[in-house]
Amino acid sequence: MDFTTALQAAWKKNDSLLCVGLDPDPAKFPAALKDRGDAVLEFCRAIVDATADLVCAFKPQIAYFAAERAEDQLEALIRHIHDTHPGIPVILDAKRGDIGSTAVQYAREAFERYDADALTVNPYMGFDSVEPYLVHKGRGVIILCRTSNAGGSDLQFLESGGRKLYQHVAELVATKWNTNGQCALVVGATFPAELAEVRRIVGDMPLLVPGIGAQGGDIAAIVSAGRTAAGTGMMINSSRAILYAGAGEDFANAARQAAEETRDAINACRR
Amino acid sequence: MDFTTALQAAWKKNDSLLCVGLDPDPAKFPAALKDRGDAVLEFCRAIVDATADLVCAFKPQIAYFAAERAEDQLEALIRHIHDTHPGIPVILDAKRGDIGSTAVQYAREAFERYDADALTVNPYMGFDSVEPYLVHKGRGVIILCRTSNAGGSDLQFLESGGRKLYQHVAELVATKWNTNGQCALVVGATFPAELAEVRRIVGDMPLLVPGIGAQGGDIAAIVSAGRTAAGTGMMINSSRAILYAGAGEDFANAARQAAEETRDAINACRR
Repeated sequence: MDFTTALQAAWKKNDSLLCVGLDPDPAKFPAALKDRGDAVLEFCRAIVDATADLVCAFKPQIAYFAAERAEDQLEALIRHIHDTHPGIPVILDAKRGDIGSTAVQYAREAFERYDADALTVNPYMGFDSVEPYLVHKGRGVIILCRTSNAGGSDLQFLESGGRKLYQHVAELVATKWNTNGQCALVVGATFPAELAEVRRIVGDMPLLVPGIGAQGGDIAAIVSAGRTAAGTGMMINSSRAILYAGAGEDFANAARQAAEETRDAINACRR
Repeated sequence: MDFTTALQAAWKKNDSLLCVGLDPDPAKFPAALKDRGDAVLEFCRAIVDATADLVCAFKPQIAYFAAERAEDQLEALIRHIHDTHPGIPVILDAKRGDIGSTAVQYAREAFERYDADALTVNPYMGFDSVEPYLVHKGRGVIILCRTSNAGGSDLQFLESGGRKLYQHVAELVATKWNTNGQCALVVGATFPAELAEVRRIVGDMPLLVPGIGAQGGDIAAIVSAGRTAAGTGMMINSSRAILYAGAGEDFANAARQAAEETRDAINACRR
């Protein structure tokens, strides 16, 4: 199933716009897991199994796996999600961006080695740096537009021809780069006004919206700003606030409860 | 030794501005290496040992290793360079870019796991996405400015307040982000006019200049545009034209010859 189709099905089946970000930080794991060689996998697998019926997607952040020399555990985790929770798309959050010949290799890494359904990509190097991902038909290519961090404004708010850089990115993707319906955009939850502006520019294109939870984005404001007419259109990501909702042995149950509350809080605003 | 000091010493000791990019593509390896489990490491090690006295830096491109599930071979390669050719800095080309908490993990990956002397970084997410790398004192942080690919112009040439985006990046890095002398910039060899403009903006800051060789940049034009008053200031990168100069068993000798010719061609222009 292609990414966009799977995402639409998951929105509906789980009645959820929530994406759970998998940022495994061993320092925050419960004591019983800490000494295990496969702690990263075990932690993420427990979170996934506890929340799979509450989400529209999972988003492992590759930096956390790479810093722990745990690429093999990332492979096993994504395989587990596909096998055990078929239909829930996996977004590999890696924010790749390089010249075409190198992007070919990053695309192999994301879509062949890891079998991710979608990948986050940086637009700074332009279309020919994005194209090698689009060659993988059906995979999602989620391009940074307006990021959730404060420093995002350093470049993304530069104005050119009456429009800010993030608006140019949204327009380029909507009108030129999205040649085959595979593209989506990253727009931070911390900037609802810009989220509304991006929604205006891109129509029904899916938006990955990080920044609720630990980063403080306001759910009501972002649902109002970012939903489509159908009441969907977003993967609203929370990582730390769900993963580390509990610090003890019942961390998975605590994560489930936090995920359910977040999903319901989102749903209360979109009805 | 910190990155900038090591780079200056290597410029002088090897009388070279040449950086050899390590982009190992098994499809292009000589037949004798192809079936070895450690072919990626063996190929790169042979290139490194054949060219170490001709370069100012080595630049492994992580995408090629990640696509082959060869992170362990990348670790071993960088260890080999440090042990066998001390003083030659290693630039990990990974073009990272993410929010601060994730950048902390990428910095651990680059500077602790791989022990790279410098890392390439994408500026799109702004200063707070770059800062976690600068915390690693003495390590180089090489920020994308004007990239060598044609699509680089899609965003980097947008004009804001009379200056193009890449000029804004150069100014931000030179005046604000380079708090501790760790920063350098990526400026493609395919755009000598912009290289000259960046040199004008950043003074003597080191520039990583990819795009000669396979990408077609003109050596005389870029040396003229990018060198400092001291006749240095650049890491001029060539990857494919050196790695695959020969296809047979003598590939390392062929690489050495190509590296020597390239170094000499650069030197002929900077004297």
